[in-house]
Amino acid sequence: MNYQEIIDRIEQEVQQETHRGKAANYIPALALQDLGKFGMAVHTIDGQDFVVGRAEESFSIQSIAKVFTLSMAMQQFDELVWKRVGKEPSGTRFNSLVQLEYESGIPRNPFMNAGALVITDMILKNSENLKNDLLSFVRGLSDNQYIAYNEEVARSEKETGYRNVALANFIKSFGNLNNKPEDVLDVYFHQCSLQMSCLDLSRAFIYLANRGFSTFCHKQVLNPRQTKRLNSILLTSGLYDAVGDFAYRVGLPGKSGVGGGIVAIIPGQLAVSAWSPGLNESGNSVLALKALELFTTYTGISVF
Amino acid sequence: MNYQEIIDRIEQEVQQETHRGKAANYIPALALQDLGKFGMAVHTIDGQDFVVGRAEESFSIQSIAKVFTLSMAMQQFDELVWKRVGKEPSGTRFNSLVQLEYESGIPRNPFMNAGALVITDMILKNSENLKNDLLSFVRGLSDNQYIAYNEEVARSEKETGYRNVALANFIKSFGNLNNKPEDVLDVYFHQCSLQMSCLDLSRAFIYLANRGFSTFCHKQVLNPRQTKRLNSILLTSGLYDAVGDFAYRVGLPGKSGVGGGIVAIIPGQLAVSAWSPGLNESGNSVLALKALELFTTYTGISVF
Amino acid sequence: MNYQEIIDRIEQEVQQETHRGKAANYIPALALQDLGKFGMAVHTIDGQDFVVGRAEESFSIQSIAKVFTLSMAMQQFDELVWKRVGKEPSGTRFNSLVQLEYESGIPRNPFMNAGALVITDMILKNSENLKNDLLSFVRGLSDNQYIAYNEEVARSEKETGYRNVALANFIKSFGNLNNKPEDVLDVYFHQCSLQMSCLDLSRAFIYLANRGFSTFCHKQVLNPRQTKRLNSILLTSGLYDAVGDFAYRVGLPGKSGVGGGIVAIIPGQLAVSAWSPGLNESGNSVLALKALELFTTYTGISVF
Amino acid sequence: MNYQEIIDRIEQEVQQETHRGKAANYIPALALQDLGKFGMAVHTIDGQDFVVGRAEESFSIQSIAKVFTLSMAMQQFDELVWKRVGKEPSGTRFNSLVQLEYESGIPRNPFMNAGALVITDMILKNSENLKNDLLSFVRGLSDNQYIAYNEEVARSEKETGYRNVALANFIKSFGNLNNKPEDVLDVYFHQCSLQMSCLDLSRAFIYLANRGFSTFCHKQVLNPRQTKRLNSILLTSGLYDAVGDFAYRVGLPGKSGVGGGIVAIIPGQLAVSAWSPGLNESGNSVLALKALELFTTYTGISVF
Repeated sequence: MNYQEIIDRIEQEVQQETHRGKAANYIPALALQDLGKFGMAVHTIDGQDFVVGRAEESFSIQSIAKVFTLSMAMQQFDELVWKRVGKEPSGTRFNSLVQLEYESGIPRNPFMNAGALVITDMILKNSENLKNDLLSFVRGLSDNQYIAYNEEVARSEKETGYRNVALANFIKSFGNLNNKPEDVLDVYFHQCSLQMSCLDLSRAFIYLANRGFSTFCHKQVLNPRQTKRLNSILLTSGLYDAVGDFAYRVGLPGKSGVGGGIVAIIPGQLAVSAWSPGLNESGNSVLALKALELFTTYTGISVF
Repeated sequence: MNYQEIIDRIEQEVQQETHRGKAANYIPALALQDLGKFGMAVHTIDGQDFVVGRAEESFSIQSIAKVFTLSMAMQQFDELVWKRVGKEPSGTRFNSLVQLEYESGIPRNPFMNAGALVITDMILKNSENLKNDLLSFVRGLSDNQYIAYNEEVARSEKETGYRNVALANFIKSFGNLNNKPEDVLDVYFHQCSLQMSCLDLSRAFIYLANRGFSTFCHKQVLNPRQTKRLNSILLTSGLYDAVGDFAYRVGLPGKSGVGGGIVAIIPGQLAVSAWSPGLNESGNSVLALKALELFTTYTGISVF
Repeated sequence: MNYQEIIDRIEQEVQQETHRGKAANYIPALALQDLGKFGMAVHTIDGQDFVVGRAEESFSIQSIAKVFTLSMAMQQFDELVWKRVGKEPSGTRFNSLVQLEYESGIPRNPFMNAGALVITDMILKNSENLKNDLLSFVRGLSDNQYIAYNEEVARSEKETGYRNVALANFIKSFGNLNNKPEDVLDVYFHQCSLQMSCLDLSRAFIYLANRGFSTFCHKQVLNPRQTKRLNSILLTSGLYDAVGDFAYRVGLPGKSGVGGGIVAIIPGQLAVSAWSPGLNESGNSVLALKALELFTTYTGISVF
Repeated sequence: MNYQEIIDRIEQEVQQETHRGKAANYIPALALQDLGKFGMAVHTIDGQDFVVGRAEESFSIQSIAKVFTLSMAMQQFDELVWKRVGKEPSGTRFNSLVQLEYESGIPRNPFMNAGALVITDMILKNSENLKNDLLSFVRGLSDNQYIAYNEEVARSEKETGYRNVALANFIKSFGNLNNKPEDVLDVYFHQCSLQMSCLDLSRAFIYLANRGFSTFCHKQVLNPRQTKRLNSILLTSGLYDAVGDFAYRVGLPGKSGVGGGIVAIIPGQLAVSAWSPGLNESGNSVLALKALELFTTYTGISVF
């Protein structure tokens, strides 16, 4: 089977799933999503695209955006990033504030909310208008000028995001934020609200499959060493508290978001994204997980 | 450079390191090791061996033995193993008993001491003499009949292993041990005391680089799916609380022991082991870590 | 109303309670107790006894014995006791092992199991036969030579007490036990098995109501300063994780056991005990709690 | 000795202490206090005042104010207060956010910061201008119209109070605040900034020594049952994580603040306050603690 045949078959299989989890319900824009939606897109380092289902419908990428801000921070600070954020798996549902309290305000890794707030704080310093800069960065990577923040989502996140406000102020109390919590939170809530499609994501992330060089937008985004390292953190920390399970089933570096999207990287070959709004208890999309597991089964590809 | 040139160069470099950590000091047999000792061995799936330094001197493999007992458990119980042990990274220094208390006696993964005790309990049930069976399994994998338990080490571990006794009894109090704690501990303390060399280890672990089939002892130890999965757990949980750092620097599935040994797997190619007794604060050998990092740098090999 | 009228009325009221909790079920000897049993006894510092119901039926005093061993330790070590055990409330269901791990093997207070193990370890050192000495101490305080250990209970505790074995070994691993865990546990399991009646308990504890001097057995058990301090620890730590609730409802220093007994002290006046086997989720007797609350209501007595 | 002789002697003794701890340093107004300052005041239920040192100099009462807001809440909600706040000791340095995360946003007791925020939220609902109402309440209890908020202190608390902002938002995320976090925090920061003297405090708290009726301002502040209960919570939870130590040494219900003040209650007799700015590691005034310990020694008074 070629990639198109594979993803066509995957779509057929996942559409037969009756257990589809529940959409994230903390803000209306996410809660009202149709659980029947499913899309998937593959982008290869030799420039081919393969799509199926709603691969070109944009959705809220949520935590997947943390890969973009971390990439920006690695460009600017390289190894110094790790002075303020760890790179170990968080390993616990009881994460966020408990871990921060025991470890003096140093988040375990850049993909926990706490870690992403610190990363955002870092790059805020070097930017006159970080929201614009981030948008340009993402549009450039996807070569899509229509990518935008969803202001309604950003506003809803802000209005209900008490735990994130708590996190930012808690980190500040340990001295690990340089900017005002409200300024960091403003960018943070916006980055979560980015709307992109599976195709956008697979294209945007191709640099992680190609030693840091994007064959799609023709830029060296990270150097090879940085790329290898970012992939390793994705593998050990990219899927909330289901990291081990994802590594076990899929065996690839990946990142998920509560909007229902998941991106995975096959080093040397391709980036693959899947999306469906229904989530399991770990906050990962049920159908997207299934789709990526089938993708590695049918292609026989794994890093192991 | 070929593999021999690479490991020769690595030996030269690591021997210049002045900071070598400290040998494990909880039992005399480990504490008295000479910090100057270093060995390294590569075994490839096409059957070649490359050695340097004390690659053929046997040492106490300690936690590396957990890979052998887990392999035996996967042979016997396949996916049922995960009913009683998790496969997520532990993510915290505050691990062992705290995590067990919060999660009702289910260890986070099979490479924490708690997890290894549960794995040992599982395979104890199917064996008339598990200590003999384990020894046969390991001797077979390495084709070396001289591999043996170090009874002095096993006895010392038993005399000082109050925390492991606590762990076993704590797990038992949650109902997650079927055998008597003392019986499980007897096998556990013995498996930690296995004496093997770097060459033994690289040969023994070659099945993990070759979809479960050992080209060295000509056996299908695990099936390809099981092998991929064991490797993924090694990558997310194999190095105590330095898993993220090891993935970041080395980028390979690996397992370390407080005897100073570390084994890593390059899927499709080889197994590589290094040994030196001096440990860092995470309990991993300083020189062996350095050696494996240099090995991936000089070979350019990584799973990412 | 005089004391006899008060406790008669209390018995009538509590016997109408339909919700009586559940007997401790971890060992047969406790599990088979009849939930209908209730007894209560008052002993005043001027030597009067008031009893109702099964006040003279002996039961398993369990954790109430920790007051006896602590008194022995204060006699022998006075303030030095607090080098190895804290005197702060534990404050958390998630107590025992978690707290020990965070605080390096120093139990929060002498009434947690961990603390009682350390106290037992202290006095074990000064005694040729601690089980005999403890029995003599308790018999002397109650002037009752029939008080004895229940060997069946002690044996059952030992056979099922994996968590206590875990605790003792865990504390030992931090260096806060001087004797062998099994020797400390043997005394510990026996002290829990002491059989006494409400009347025995109220008489035995009268020294705590009278500045350390027992008007019943005519001995200065503790000095006035020690007595005040033991009472303060009873008030802040005597009722597992319901300390605040007991202080709130009853307002007296007290100690409970999972056998269903509770003793409380009214400084300057009396000791009062109640017993009934049914426990609430905190492990305290439902009817005995109710009885003591009514006792303070009808007598108008409180330390506040 | 009469009370005046006793407190004169206490002043002489504490002034000889060379170890005086450190003033709270998180805001300038507290940090700049002179460690040499010491005051003490006794107010008896028969209306006598005894003062020594700087007993009439006002200082920042900080957490002592939590007793006033809790009293207001008990007046308005009686037992319903405990639906939203516990009454158990917190028992851990690792308190605040960790405990909240494990227990779903219900603070352990009303004297932790988290608990005081919830209490403030409760009474905010019933008041058009809570800051005014609280001030009137306190002025009435002390019969002193000069008692006021220190706006500079309130502002400083606000500017540096990231952890309290984190707490309020964290509690809100669990649904246990009805008002906006910023509105609750505004009152909270103001109540901490109340300026009162030792004499003001002893007079204001006399109702706690007299079954809820203030002989000083001639009001029934709480009923006798409520008073007994508030005292019991003061004894088990009033001194941060030194509750057990204070009960052990002083044996009285009490409340401390990081401004260096401590108030204690002798039921049936008097209220006594001491103040000195130097704090120990638990955040309690070194000299005030010493003074209260001596007071119970010289008067022979204790609740036990």
